[in-house]
Amino acid sequence: MNGAESLVRTLTDSGIEICFANPGTSEIHFVEALDRVSQLRGVPCLFEGVAVGAADGYARMTDKPACTLLHLGPGLANGLANLHNARRARVPLLNIVGDHASFHRHYDAPLTSDIEAIARPYSAWLRTSVTAAQVAEDGAEAVAATRAMPGRIATLIVPADTAWNEGSGVAQVPEVPAPPMPDAAAIERAVSQLRTGLPTAIILGGRLTRGTALITAGRVAAATGARLFAPFSFSRIERGAGRPIVERIAYVVEQATEQLRGLRQLILVEAPAPVAFFGHPSRPSVLTPESCEIHTLARSGEDGAAALESLATELSASHTPFLAQDSSRPSLPRGDITLAGLAAIVGANLPQNAIVVDESITSGRGMMAATSGAPPHDWIVNTGGSIGIGMPLAVGAALACPDRPVLCLSGDGSAMYTLQALWTAARENLKITTVIFSNRSYSILKGEFGGIGANPGPRALGLLDIGRPDLDFVSLAKGMGLTGRCVSTLEEFAAALQSGLASTEPNLIEVPL
Amino acid sequence: MNGAESLVRTLTDSGIEICFANPGTSEIHFVEALDRVSQLRGVPCLFEGVAVGAADGYARMTDKPACTLLHLGPGLANGLANLHNARRARVPLLNIVGDHASFHRHYDAPLTSDIEAIARPYSAWLRTSVTAAQVAEDGAEAVAATRAMPGRIATLIVPADTAWNEGSGVAQVPEVPAPPMPDAAAIERAVSQLRTGLPTAIILGGRLTRGTALITAGRVAAATGARLFAPFSFSRIERGAGRPIVERIAYVVEQATEQLRGLRQLILVEAPAPVAFFGHPSRPSVLTPESCEIHTLARSGEDGAAALESLATELSASHTPFLAQDSSRPSLPRGDITLAGLAAIVGANLPQNAIVVDESITSGRGMMAATSGAPPHDWIVNTGGSIGIGMPLAVGAALACPDRPVLCLSGDGSAMYTLQALWTAARENLKITTVIFSNRSYSILKGEFGGIGANPGPRALGLLDIGRPDLDFVSLAKGMGLTGRCVSTLEEFAAALQSGLASTEPNLIEVPL
Repeated sequence: MNGAESLVRTLTDSGIEICFANPGTSEIHFVEALDRVSQLRGVPCLFEGVAVGAADGYARMTDKPACTLLHLGPGLANGLANLHNARRARVPLLNIVGDHASFHRHYDAPLTSDIEAIARPYSAWLRTSVTAAQVAEDGAEAVAATRAMPGRIATLIVPADTAWNEGSGVAQVPEVPAPPMPDAAAIERAVSQLRTGLPTAIILGGRLTRGTALITAGRVAAATGARLFAPFSFSRIERGAGRPIVERIAYVVEQATEQLRGLRQLILVEAPAPVAFFGHPSRPSVLTPESCEIHTLARSGEDGAAALESLATELSASHTPFLAQDSSRPSLPRGDITLAGLAAIVGANLPQNAIVVDESITSGRGMMAATSGAPPHDWIVNTGGSIGIGMPLAVGAALACPDRPVLCLSGDGSAMYTLQALWTAARENLKITTVIFSNRSYSILKGEFGGIGANPGPRALGLLDIGRPDLDFVSLAKGMGLTGRCVSTLEEFAAALQSGLASTEPNLIEVPL
Repeated sequence: MNGAESLVRTLTDSGIEICFANPGTSEIHFVEALDRVSQLRGVPCLFEGVAVGAADGYARMTDKPACTLLHLGPGLANGLANLHNARRARVPLLNIVGDHASFHRHYDAPLTSDIEAIARPYSAWLRTSVTAAQVAEDGAEAVAATRAMPGRIATLIVPADTAWNEGSGVAQVPEVPAPPMPDAAAIERAVSQLRTGLPTAIILGGRLTRGTALITAGRVAAATGARLFAPFSFSRIERGAGRPIVERIAYVVEQATEQLRGLRQLILVEAPAPVAFFGHPSRPSVLTPESCEIHTLARSGEDGAAALESLATELSASHTPFLAQDSSRPSLPRGDITLAGLAAIVGANLPQNAIVVDESITSGRGMMAATSGAPPHDWIVNTGGSIGIGMPLAVGAALACPDRPVLCLSGDGSAMYTLQALWTAARENLKITTVIFSNRSYSILKGEFGGIGANPGPRALGLLDIGRPDLDFVSLAKGMGLTGRCVSTLEEFAAALQSGLASTEPNLIEVPL
């Protein structure tokens, strides 16, 4: 078998099942190998940011790496913004990037570039395969690198001759070392803090906002009176009725400092200390009170779940019932569209086991509150602040969990970066309902003017205004092969949402604001 | 004035007139400064690849830098693929990239990244401003860097506090050194080659395929019997009836080697030696015959135009009439759509002074031949092989030359990378007619399978097929605020093209193939 096939078979042997692809000539042998290796599902993407964001969404739901297939330096470059988000989400993700045949590189043909330099800022593991005999082993090491906790991005560059020359068969993925346990002193200190009775919070990062770790954290919180927080930029939370209550730290600095006011102790578990999203001339960068003692129980890459177990044991909380979210749904509002009304309708209709991908920015700030008592579901957000990941994440989540309904909430501005995700959703017939909040501006930026004491004139506002002409998302969806509806009342939104979520096909709802 | 205003005023003082912008919070002071500095026109873009590609198109028409305004590392990352193309086009282009305030960077907030590392592979000049007092001078040096021949990309990173703190006023742009003259020996050697009478060709790179340089090259060619070529990836050619005849080197290796067969001497003027776009297991990388002597008369960055003048003087060709393209138009074909028929209709209708942006890939291979005798016009192509630049280039060209009709020819696959350009065209009411060739596949890749002796099955072909569902570009255009038409016969195409080119508004024609 050629190098490409040896690589593909190594990937599938290691458990990689899906490849989000936007290939070109230099990746043609990899594409050809897919004909012979049916275990790797190729999912076509019209833009690389979709491929990378979908791989992120897949990993957030499965904790398993997907691979992308990208075309030389520019193909990788088009994926970087969502790689930035994926790196912040700490997901396992493998990029396969084609390059010129090794004998062709020095001619500096138009598509030549320094792919390693492009990949380096975003890749925890990076290598260019040098021979077809080596590429399978390189691929195996790359897969292992993605699996090292807390989930890493690996980029393997495959020169075309490394793909087409004879390979050396399938390689075994090396064993991935278990994440180190935080040291005993760090656990002891957290135990002491939690025994003081002082106002204390625990921030859960990484994968700790779900599964057993979340339950354990809930027990510790219930036993000690500590509050549980997630960073504003979390990767996925299991939430809804019956689940432990986790507060998300707010984006708006004044709201976040209010949330954290009075805290005397903060315990970080695989999470960063809370800071403002942006620096500001007069607002603080640090969100915690000055008098708050911040303790890192587990760093990212350490075994925060085990650390939480240790806390529970030390505090005799292993069987303490956690404070569970009550079951409740907002009543269905009617009439003119308001943000609160839209949120209530989502809360009233969110199906059990739904996956919500939320990139609704300013329009969706009430969504999490309105859905907190809905049946159990998952919530996924943008982790790195590079907008244009919501719809790709939805594609990846839907492919990871084909039986679960996916609700994607997107601002109109965000939607326009990677709109091509809609086509992949249509192509793969994914059960995604996309709601576009069309306020026809980069609304979050208009808010910033107030914050800096400026009074923008028409020329400045013109750059933040994405109307004139208004985008028509129903037509855009139609152009990608999806059914779309535009709604003008809350009743219409409720009906569209209900029918969208019940549909087995991808669909879109535009909500002009 | 604050740093942002001092920077904006420095840019406008230096002659920069346009800013293609996709700003965020960290660029808000730059945006605000636009209210006070009306000389800089801000053009909103929904995606950064559009901003960069438009700046490239503007520079190709004017030889002047535009600036982009991009949001931190991810905003820059989204522009990299088209920066790759711009670097290959050797255009002057200035990126202004916001960053966190300097005091905020070390908190590693979600949008933090190593912006210099991201910019470096694509930037001939790169700097992070460290104080508001310095930012204007940094901007002035950046502008000068873009203007150094042969046209360079400069990236200036502006931390937010550098924008909002008090600046030090407008800075003067340093003098840009003239490009060095190739040495006398290089000119002598070219003169000797051209006097041998052996089969000889001159390849014109950089800006030499237009203006006085092109005329001079035409005189030298006429006086000596040499042929004139442009690289496959040229930046802009002035062509059509009455202009010197320049052959474009073909993409397909067999066609290119056939074009160059028999050549004994090749003179490169700011152009690379012709090589295949991709390496191949059995095809040559070098396109020239083995016996062909290749001489570099002027490197990129040297004064190729002056070198051509010297050749003309030495060869007493300064007044030799150049071989001018005859005026001729194809007759209007009728009936079912064929690629030859579409090309003939473009040839029959191309208006005088049109600007053609050609990213039509496989579908448009006959376009240049069919238009060679049309009235004088400009032709612009993808220079770096990263598809998704055609529609952004058209936006930039139309803004640079508001009185000229722009015809943008795009493959459907190419169009989907940076479709958001249509919205900017609608917003700015640009005179662009976009023709989409919908073959519903990455057709060029299907061709590659034959070249490698492979017989792709359905899984491989599935990744190259961009139908199921078919993209509907008329709806996509409508969604962006443009009028679109879908045509199904050559007569319909001719009518749509005539009316589109006569329109004062942007419009789109989809041609299903």
